[in-house]
Amino acid sequence: MSTSSPASSTPRMRVEHDCIGALEVPQNVYWGIHTQRAIENFTVSGIPDGAHGALIRAYAVVKRACAIANAELGLVDTRKAEAIEQACEEIEHGALADQFPVDVLQGGAGTSLNMNMNEVIANRALEICGRPRGDYDYIHPNDDVNHSQSTNDTYPAACKLAICGGLTPLAESARRLRAAFHKLADKHANDVTIGRTQLQDAVPMTFGQEFHAWATFLKLDLQAMDALVGQLCDLNLGATAIGTGICADLRFRDTVTRTLAQLTGLPVHAALDPVASVTDMSAYIAASATLKNLAVHLKKAADDLRLLNSGPRCGFEDLHVPARQAGSSIMPGKINPVIPECVDQCCFMIFGMDVTVNWAAAEGQLQLNAFDPVIIHEILTGMTLAINAMDMFRTKCVDGIEVNVERGRLYAERSTSIAAALNDAIGYEHAAELAQTAAAEHSTVREAAKTHTGLPHAEIDRLLDTVALSRGLGQTCREHGDSTR
Amino acid sequence: MSTSSPASSTPRMRVEHDCIGALEVPQNVYWGIHTQRAIENFTVSGIPDGAHGALIRAYAVVKRACAIANAELGLVDTRKAEAIEQACEEIEHGALADQFPVDVLQGGAGTSLNMNMNEVIANRALEICGRPRGDYDYIHPNDDVNHSQSTNDTYPAACKLAICGGLTPLAESARRLRAAFHKLADKHANDVTIGRTQLQDAVPMTFGQEFHAWATFLKLDLQAMDALVGQLCDLNLGATAIGTGICADLRFRDTVTRTLAQLTGLPVHAALDPVASVTDMSAYIAASATLKNLAVHLKKAADDLRLLNSGPRCGFEDLHVPARQAGSSIMPGKINPVIPECVDQCCFMIFGMDVTVNWAAAEGQLQLNAFDPVIIHEILTGMTLAINAMDMFRTKCVDGIEVNVERGRLYAERSTSIAAALNDAIGYEHAAELAQTAAAEHSTVREAAKTHTGLPHAEIDRLLDTVALSRGLGQTCREHGDSTR
Amino acid sequence: MSTSSPASSTPRMRVEHDCIGALEVPQNVYWGIHTQRAIENFTVSGIPDGAHGALIRAYAVVKRACAIANAELGLVDTRKAEAIEQACEEIEHGALADQFPVDVLQGGAGTSLNMNMNEVIANRALEICGRPRGDYDYIHPNDDVNHSQSTNDTYPAACKLAICGGLTPLAESARRLRAAFHKLADKHANDVTIGRTQLQDAVPMTFGQEFHAWATFLKLDLQAMDALVGQLCDLNLGATAIGTGICADLRFRDTVTRTLAQLTGLPVHAALDPVASVTDMSAYIAASATLKNLAVHLKKAADDLRLLNSGPRCGFEDLHVPARQAGSSIMPGKINPVIPECVDQCCFMIFGMDVTVNWAAAEGQLQLNAFDPVIIHEILTGMTLAINAMDMFRTKCVDGIEVNVERGRLYAERSTSIAAALNDAIGYEHAAELAQTAAAEHSTVREAAKTHTGLPHAEIDRLLDTVALSRGLGQTCREHGDSTR
Amino acid sequence: MSTSSPASSTPRMRVEHDCIGALEVPQNVYWGIHTQRAIENFTVSGIPDGAHGALIRAYAVVKRACAIANAELGLVDTRKAEAIEQACEEIEHGALADQFPVDVLQGGAGTSLNMNMNEVIANRALEICGRPRGDYDYIHPNDDVNHSQSTNDTYPAACKLAICGGLTPLAESARRLRAAFHKLADKHANDVTIGRTQLQDAVPMTFGQEFHAWATFLKLDLQAMDALVGQLCDLNLGATAIGTGICADLRFRDTVTRTLAQLTGLPVHAALDPVASVTDMSAYIAASATLKNLAVHLKKAADDLRLLNSGPRCGFEDLHVPARQAGSSIMPGKINPVIPECVDQCCFMIFGMDVTVNWAAAEGQLQLNAFDPVIIHEILTGMTLAINAMDMFRTKCVDGIEVNVERGRLYAERSTSIAAALNDAIGYEHAAELAQTAAAEHSTVREAAKTHTGLPHAEIDRLLDTVALSRGLGQTCREHGDSTR
Repeated sequence: MSTSSPASSTPRMRVEHDCIGALEVPQNVYWGIHTQRAIENFTVSGIPDGAHGALIRAYAVVKRACAIANAELGLVDTRKAEAIEQACEEIEHGALADQFPVDVLQGGAGTSLNMNMNEVIANRALEICGRPRGDYDYIHPNDDVNHSQSTNDTYPAACKLAICGGLTPLAESARRLRAAFHKLADKHANDVTIGRTQLQDAVPMTFGQEFHAWATFLKLDLQAMDALVGQLCDLNLGATAIGTGICADLRFRDTVTRTLAQLTGLPVHAALDPVASVTDMSAYIAASATLKNLAVHLKKAADDLRLLNSGPRCGFEDLHVPARQAGSSIMPGKINPVIPECVDQCCFMIFGMDVTVNWAAAEGQLQLNAFDPVIIHEILTGMTLAINAMDMFRTKCVDGIEVNVERGRLYAERSTSIAAALNDAIGYEHAAELAQTAAAEHSTVREAAKTHTGLPHAEIDRLLDTVALSRGLGQTCREHGDSTR
Repeated sequence: MSTSSPASSTPRMRVEHDCIGALEVPQNVYWGIHTQRAIENFTVSGIPDGAHGALIRAYAVVKRACAIANAELGLVDTRKAEAIEQACEEIEHGALADQFPVDVLQGGAGTSLNMNMNEVIANRALEICGRPRGDYDYIHPNDDVNHSQSTNDTYPAACKLAICGGLTPLAESARRLRAAFHKLADKHANDVTIGRTQLQDAVPMTFGQEFHAWATFLKLDLQAMDALVGQLCDLNLGATAIGTGICADLRFRDTVTRTLAQLTGLPVHAALDPVASVTDMSAYIAASATLKNLAVHLKKAADDLRLLNSGPRCGFEDLHVPARQAGSSIMPGKINPVIPECVDQCCFMIFGMDVTVNWAAAEGQLQLNAFDPVIIHEILTGMTLAINAMDMFRTKCVDGIEVNVERGRLYAERSTSIAAALNDAIGYEHAAELAQTAAAEHSTVREAAKTHTGLPHAEIDRLLDTVALSRGLGQTCREHGDSTR
Repeated sequence: MSTSSPASSTPRMRVEHDCIGALEVPQNVYWGIHTQRAIENFTVSGIPDGAHGALIRAYAVVKRACAIANAELGLVDTRKAEAIEQACEEIEHGALADQFPVDVLQGGAGTSLNMNMNEVIANRALEICGRPRGDYDYIHPNDDVNHSQSTNDTYPAACKLAICGGLTPLAESARRLRAAFHKLADKHANDVTIGRTQLQDAVPMTFGQEFHAWATFLKLDLQAMDALVGQLCDLNLGATAIGTGICADLRFRDTVTRTLAQLTGLPVHAALDPVASVTDMSAYIAASATLKNLAVHLKKAADDLRLLNSGPRCGFEDLHVPARQAGSSIMPGKINPVIPECVDQCCFMIFGMDVTVNWAAAEGQLQLNAFDPVIIHEILTGMTLAINAMDMFRTKCVDGIEVNVERGRLYAERSTSIAAALNDAIGYEHAAELAQTAAAEHSTVREAAKTHTGLPHAEIDRLLDTVALSRGLGQTCREHGDSTR
Repeated sequence: MSTSSPASSTPRMRVEHDCIGALEVPQNVYWGIHTQRAIENFTVSGIPDGAHGALIRAYAVVKRACAIANAELGLVDTRKAEAIEQACEEIEHGALADQFPVDVLQGGAGTSLNMNMNEVIANRALEICGRPRGDYDYIHPNDDVNHSQSTNDTYPAACKLAICGGLTPLAESARRLRAAFHKLADKHANDVTIGRTQLQDAVPMTFGQEFHAWATFLKLDLQAMDALVGQLCDLNLGATAIGTGICADLRFRDTVTRTLAQLTGLPVHAALDPVASVTDMSAYIAASATLKNLAVHLKKAADDLRLLNSGPRCGFEDLHVPARQAGSSIMPGKINPVIPECVDQCCFMIFGMDVTVNWAAAEGQLQLNAFDPVIIHEILTGMTLAINAMDMFRTKCVDGIEVNVERGRLYAERSTSIAAALNDAIGYEHAAELAQTAAAEHSTVREAAKTHTGLPHAEIDRLLDTVALSRGLGQTCREHGDSTR
């Protein structure tokens, strides 16, 4: 399957034809005239379709399912179909990855990648059959590989399966980061610190609760990813060009859907309204929103860490993120939270991605939305970014966080908002006065309460026990909840 | 419950106190010092909280559930609690709607609306008990009405229930529009026209399929709305300030959650991780994305109608939207598709809303996100806009669409892409040549096929029957699917 | 000019006609059939055009300029034109403000507001002439008021002038806020504090420099507003429907442009390419970006204040923003920075606005962009929001900021990054070691330098003088720059 | 300057130190420990800084200017400075392009790229001096190369100059596309067609005017690019870490600013308020908005072409874009407007970019915005995308457009809105009736006018002459305007 040219510097060429005319294609590539034109047409991003391995693999399995269904229904000769299937399977396993060179922002609603697939599969299948490349009378990219298919049904199927495929490593990465947060939470389950609302000192909590919340965020994201799969597996194969199924045997839809479900192990089913399905972008909007919500959660953890790590002498300094590199070219010894900052920037990319997806999704016209390519490029790029950001966040930052336990304890004790714990005993208004008194006297609420209320000191100590105050529902949560952890 | 002042032009005032000091409040209003300060503080949008009736009603039911739970657990005296409950119920039924005057973009994470609620409820409850306004020793806004509560648990609860509340009219409006599309689809189930992909003539379909797709879009949106409810009902009552439940009896969480579920008939449950829940914005992100997807669907229908209605002599003119008003101050007799244009603009507003929600959702810090107010304002505004846009779209446009049946039929016959129907018979490449021949000869593919292929004319007529071609899967869809319609 | 109906509860009606048919219009309103249809058609936002006073006034002056030009060129009878001019002038001065009831999100590219203007002006002009409303044979909304005009040239002109009009109060508000920042800066010109980069302690600066930077932001915004005016005054009057000037005397363009410049005192000029100008949205994109940049600046100041105000015991506490209201319904005595939070939310609204404007601006088709109405609604709303946010920010927050001078001084002394001041003396790498030594020893860099370097103590004191270090270029800036202050 | 390693498979390593500790760096690379740590830290996008050649070259010239200024002021030894200058100049000319491997989304506000620059320049300068890599006692990355500098002043300077650098090819590409539109416009200056507003037939214009408008859009964009340069050249060198100029000789600011202006030929000047300048993101917001406006213009032309090219038999078919590739895998002979579709997708990317830039620009804190890296990455990527999209658009589409002259002529004649030309003669209302009559009778307005008005036929022919009607102001424009063309 080598694509390397022989010693000669000018590659040998073969001539192929389409409805526009004839064109030379290098003899040593698997693609054909449709791909060749597309390479020359689209010169904008410099990123080839092949960069999205998940998309190429997903398209190959779609093509394989179609070949099986075509053979089963007697629509394509079995021997041709078998060669096609073998070619697809090779691509699914990573072969010919360099044979998908068309720009990811291609116009044409994905037709170029579909034809690229059809051509590469046809030529590899021909090779398997001992035939020369371009011998399309024997196996034809359109009539055989693309039989019963259109770009408008197979391309979205491949895109959606590619997102499904990407969800697996995304979820794994999220699970690993979640475990890292849990580990921190467990370690500091009893270390009291101050909770802050609106950046103002509020009431006691534990560091454990603080870290556990970030783990819970990821749990919610994992649930959302799971919920996406069903929506992404609502495919439209057999609907061909505009959903009416022109050129496809009516039995094909069920057969290929069933076959694809078997091949992938995914809950693939046929869209209820095949005409609507061609232009419905809901699955992309949902996938993008899910990714955006994950980014919101990651940004929250990264921003909180930047705040909690502020200092070392003029900030919060509740904790320290690991020193990863010198922070300044001019300020000696300065260390910055560069990993959370990098995470934040990945999130900003994803927020922009969501807007690009919105644009493309809302610009469909009549029987097609031509802008799937930019959508799938953006979503797959965003998913990879999120995976990398989470892995980096975990290994370069979260795993090494060191909590300033003593400071947390002091903060919890010093907050005047802790007077809330006296509301029941003395009422909100008196508690407010007490808080103000403590502030004015530079004392703790505990001290002020002992001086200014008639409550027994033991009762005051009991009510203002920061450990007990922080426990509350959090304890409940850890005992009863989170069984999937 | 009148708030009108007596004849005197200077209203009588009462003096209230808070931790900042004393302030005069008009005697004839139900709110107190916290609200009064907030009125004076926030002067940006000019829109009062009361403009969002769904939010006020939802907050009142939350407060009522809390009062019931407080009474049940013996935390608030039964007689006080009953007066509080009655006051809440009145507000739920629309009373005192003018007593919520604080700017919707208020800072403070919703504390002003919570205190506004507490004060209005307290003063109305006092009135019910025959007590004067401001007699907080008897019923106190914080110690009684707000007992076991914080802004940070009740405000998000009210916001999420308000969105739930808004989903009902939103869904009703979507169902009505969907029925209008279905009616059009049924009427034109057999009227063939041309499908267009990438604005180029493609293959035949029926007008019925075209309209049905828009109905299916709305079906998907309705399913998405249903799926939101569970997420929106994941509330955090009893978690108080930062999720630890400080100031709340530990039994309160279960009691109030159960009570609220009973009062609303909604699947209200308690969030698993109460600390995480305080800052988790997932439900808002999801609600905004659902609304955005609906807008994408509405824009698609509106844009398609603008295209199909283009003309009357130099465009597509597949159909006519009803003439609603003269279209030009200068071009006599010109009629424009003003209703779809108005729909489009509502969608642009919603796309901007989604970005604002993203901003606010991603700016939480530590134990709170202070920006719920702008989120709920934007989502409720967007929902109302969507409701109004759908009702307008339906009554002023969709119901009156007139299809140009004859033109559709001609278009379907004339498209050269219909040569696809001959792929099986003569192969894709020959079919392409035939399409080009028809184009060059200004003939139909049918005519060209009869002249240039050896196929029997009857076979050609059978293969190119536009009615049969359009039916395909569409027919299947109508027979088997869509049983919920 | 009263619009109140007589005692009878059913208003008297007059019948008007358009190309669609006849319709009853209340006798007592100034508008006519075109407005009446539009009121009934557009039922989405509930906000009438009249809510944007700046737009109504701007449109009236455009209409007046057209009337003057029509009279000057002999295109409209002088007596009619004079009545029209008078009616316009009244509207410019605020009269008939309740006569513009059409929804701001109207479809039709602004035709409804243009016809609303034409009708109200015609009927008021008829009244001035002692004629009954609806006597359009005498003065006709289209033939007379709208003479030489189209919606497509006058509506964008009015929109752009409305933005110009809004820039004046926006700039005034920005100038007032800038002055407030300057006042703070002057007061604290010599109060040293710590500068923080990436939330890590950096090197000394003064509070004055910190506040001055926010003032400078606004100076940049003011310059940007000035730069907008020229772009907004590039109008297209006389170009009528699509830029070809159909129905308009060729001399009209110059005459009306000159007249409008005189009436407004603005640098009004005619767009170079009248066809391009109809669909060019550059001025709106620029206005929206300018407003967005202002919001970025306001958010920066608001966010910084929230950080600097963090505490009171577990945060930065560099300064205190004024206490505006009790911050919590449950935590007694807690005070939150509610005003900066409100400012932030206004900024999020403006960020969403920019996306909505982008959508509308990028959806033009062929000879028109039909979506001006949502653009102008969003920009004018955003401008008002910015004005209100700045005034609130200033009066409720900035004016009352109290700096924690002592803490700033301590912070500046304690930062280890101050070792940068020793770079020249001992090199970056030794300085880094010294910073780490100080950190390990819990000493200041000054103390560590005296112990661990051979530098004379006086030299160390000189190099580490925080006042001198903070002055640097800042001093230069204050002496030479900012002459416009 | 080869970086290739010797035959041995394990590269030889050198050990370097920083404030964190020691680390091995491959002996054969020019970078040092700071870069090495950053490579290992940031693993998210897979795109190295070196991918942005404009940024690397701009940074090198900034460093060269600093070296010259340091030498001139006697701050760095002349012989060192000269070696540094030479190293910079080599990089400016493209050398060592593979020595900038850090992820473009790096945290740290650009410190990694600055230190990467400092290290590569130092080691190349050492090589020039015949010294081994890592011999920093002789030439030090911080003490010598970075002398008088910080990341926070040099990195933004490099970013802004990089954008300036990118504006040149962007403008050239825009000029080429503009010329292509002009060529089309000239060719069809007298070919009449129908103007359409709101997709409805309006009044006559020429194809020339239609194309000319797109050229004018680009003229406006070119003016906007010019206007950006001044803003981008407002640099802050000498302000170092936070704007106070710590570690920099006070004379350095003027010297380096003047030097950089000389080296680049750009109007480089020093920001008025050096503290504000560190965190002011106005120039990025403006650059992004300019790019967005260009994208809005490109999208307009691409969308219009897709509409005008619709058909070939069931659409507008005013013109044909060149056939670039077969349009469908299933519909034989179908050709799609794939190039405009690709342009549209590039625009969607840029719209998302603008939102990402907004996010990063609005998240600055206190004395720094740490998110410059994502901003510069996005803007430079967007500029390249725009350049590529314009070149592709021109060569693969615009240059080959073929106008359907005959159809345009027919359309113009058939529109009923042309009745506007009779407004002056018979009044708007009668003209509207006439338009409706023509519609009902399936005649042209010209025919209906001859039958139904008393106007002389010659007068009717004169008034309805489509060539004359289209000319109007357009003619004026071509005669007087656009002298810079």
